[in-house]
Amino acid sequence: MTSTHHPDDEHWMRLALDLAVRGQGYVEPNPMVGCVLVKDGVCIARGYHHVFGGPHAEVDALQSLRSPDEAAGATAYVTLEPCCHHGKTPPCSEALIRAGVTRVVVAMRDPFPKVDGGGIRQLRQAGIEVTLDVLKADAEALLAPYLKRVRTGTPWVIAKWAMTADGRIATVSRQSQWITGAESRRRVHRLRGRVDAIITAMGTVEADDPMLNSRLMDADGTPMTPPRVAKRVVFCRRRLPALQSKLIHTADAIETWLFTSPLVDGERLAALRQRGARVFALDSDDPQSMVRQTLQRLGEQDMTNVMIEGGAALLGSFWDPTSGECLVDEFHVYIGAKLFGGVTAPGPIAGAGLGPIDLATKLALSQVDRFEDDVRLVYRRALG
Amino acid sequence: MTSTHHPDDEHWMRLALDLAVRGQGYVEPNPMVGCVLVKDGVCIARGYHHVFGGPHAEVDALQSLRSPDEAAGATAYVTLEPCCHHGKTPPCSEALIRAGVTRVVVAMRDPFPKVDGGGIRQLRQAGIEVTLDVLKADAEALLAPYLKRVRTGTPWVIAKWAMTADGRIATVSRQSQWITGAESRRRVHRLRGRVDAIITAMGTVEADDPMLNSRLMDADGTPMTPPRVAKRVVFCRRRLPALQSKLIHTADAIETWLFTSPLVDGERLAALRQRGARVFALDSDDPQSMVRQTLQRLGEQDMTNVMIEGGAALLGSFWDPTSGECLVDEFHVYIGAKLFGGVTAPGPIAGAGLGPIDLATKLALSQVDRFEDDVRLVYRRALG
Repeated sequence: MTSTHHPDDEHWMRLALDLAVRGQGYVEPNPMVGCVLVKDGVCIARGYHHVFGGPHAEVDALQSLRSPDEAAGATAYVTLEPCCHHGKTPPCSEALIRAGVTRVVVAMRDPFPKVDGGGIRQLRQAGIEVTLDVLKADAEALLAPYLKRVRTGTPWVIAKWAMTADGRIATVSRQSQWITGAESRRRVHRLRGRVDAIITAMGTVEADDPMLNSRLMDADGTPMTPPRVAKRVVFCRRRLPALQSKLIHTADAIETWLFTSPLVDGERLAALRQRGARVFALDSDDPQSMVRQTLQRLGEQDMTNVMIEGGAALLGSFWDPTSGECLVDEFHVYIGAKLFGGVTAPGPIAGAGLGPIDLATKLALSQVDRFEDDVRLVYRRALG
Repeated sequence: MTSTHHPDDEHWMRLALDLAVRGQGYVEPNPMVGCVLVKDGVCIARGYHHVFGGPHAEVDALQSLRSPDEAAGATAYVTLEPCCHHGKTPPCSEALIRAGVTRVVVAMRDPFPKVDGGGIRQLRQAGIEVTLDVLKADAEALLAPYLKRVRTGTPWVIAKWAMTADGRIATVSRQSQWITGAESRRRVHRLRGRVDAIITAMGTVEADDPMLNSRLMDADGTPMTPPRVAKRVVFCRRRLPALQSKLIHTADAIETWLFTSPLVDGERLAALRQRGARVFALDSDDPQSMVRQTLQRLGEQDMTNVMIEGGAALLGSFWDPTSGECLVDEFHVYIGAKLFGGVTAPGPIAGAGLGPIDLATKLALSQVDRFEDDVRLVYRRALG
């Protein structure tokens, strides 16, 4: 029942975290989880939660053993507290107890109400030594979208933009193709292929007539199946998409959700619904209220990750210029090796902006990647 | 007299290039040069040009030998063709011949008119095997500022700016302190401490009353002496600095050069000159002509590297919006982990901007560095 850290704990937990991330895009709304079984200093099994509805990480690891007896006396490293409730699969706490593991190392407690310490309690009651909070910060960073949804009921919001090295998303005459190269654009399709929704606004629909789907190819040019197909969410504040737009034209194949304000022409909604679009009528035409209500609705639809791919105006409506509050959690900033210059060349975030510098949104840089002459910076909103 | 490449040539030339860069900021207007002497596969001496007026790299390497005889039969790797003329020091070609080296490997020919192949010719006439163009592209990249000055008579122009992750240099209410952290600002002081001039404009002088000097501290907070003290170059198109501005107040200690258009109040020049400022009267008030004339004059003053630290308007005047021509060679873009947003928040390059995207300035990314949550991207203008 003691809870001592062993010198190798972080090493094995790092491996379990690396396994967990393989489920990204496949497991949501479940959390990504990895599990490693170690006996006499040797890793005897690795597992992770592969796909929503499939075995959890602990069971995946146990199933990879040649014989179930092998787990007796082993230590299990799991990136999240084992579940203790009957969901789509039986509780993992019971599986670990039955397998005879004698120690369980957990990166973090699961705040999901049906677990929330219950898994740890069950293990301890069975006489298993439980060590908590090993690489907790890393596990929390990995699971931030899941944790946000469980704690607030709203999804993790990712904004992505491509800008020049002087911070412009288009020239003074509004040309923008292309700012970044092929590999950067491929990465954007990869991101699109793992989120639950891609949010855009009518300005972009009218200007670009986009498909907003993930079009990934393998090395031979064969289309690849992404982990999931994002729903296409369109902010319709004043106008609605044309029936001949690509979004509506393909609405029966890829879900297309229109979030409408009271200002739109209600008589056109029936025809859009008939083509397969789903309409969510919001009770406000204030862009920030529309954003808040939409995120609430998307959370109710069990969405974990959503992505904004709109223009600068849509992105700007995710800030409250008075309080500085920002409703975006993560930023993928692609910087192309070009300069546009010009006072009127647009930047990525329009709106009123944050005047006093202490209201500026503070970020933490989590990743820097280079793709040829492009750079991708991944930030998360800094806390506090 | 043959010119075969040996398998280790690139290895030793890389070392010579690494040595050369140690002279950065100290040797200009001379080129940075490194030299390695190799005998029987072993490096027997390393040298580089430490400081303007001091021994050249080849002599520095030869002087480091315990006995001058050691060089007999060795191969010398030099990053630039050895000089063959009597300048501040005797010719290096003669020093190598006298030392008895039997092979000289050269990264690139020196286009300086008094050399320009003459050093190579002298070595070959003495029966020394000369191999050319080993890591030529790396040597050319290292010496780009020197090569530009020799070929065009104008200095290498470096623009530096700090912007947020959404490409803003100030908030909508024009606040900008601070966008980046302490380490980024330290790097800027390091850059200031190796260039020949820091160019600014009256807008910045009036808004910030800057010193534009290099203020570097060591770990104990003791001020460090930079490699050189940059002259402060001020574009005075309509207005002149106040006598009580920091620049003029310190003009007797740090050279302060005013490049004036015919629009300035000529009667004020005498008082500014009396305080130590030097006045260069340009014959145009067109910002782009002023930039061209100024760069010409700075080249005539033997300047190799100059740096722009002005506002967005000054920077914008380094572009011709009609042709897209850009007079900046290198860009140091610091990206702070903040977002300002807002349509009217300024970007780094003002002016008319480049409208058609094919006029956009194309860059090559040469370096990516991270300082805590800041990122520095170093670009050079791409050719063609």
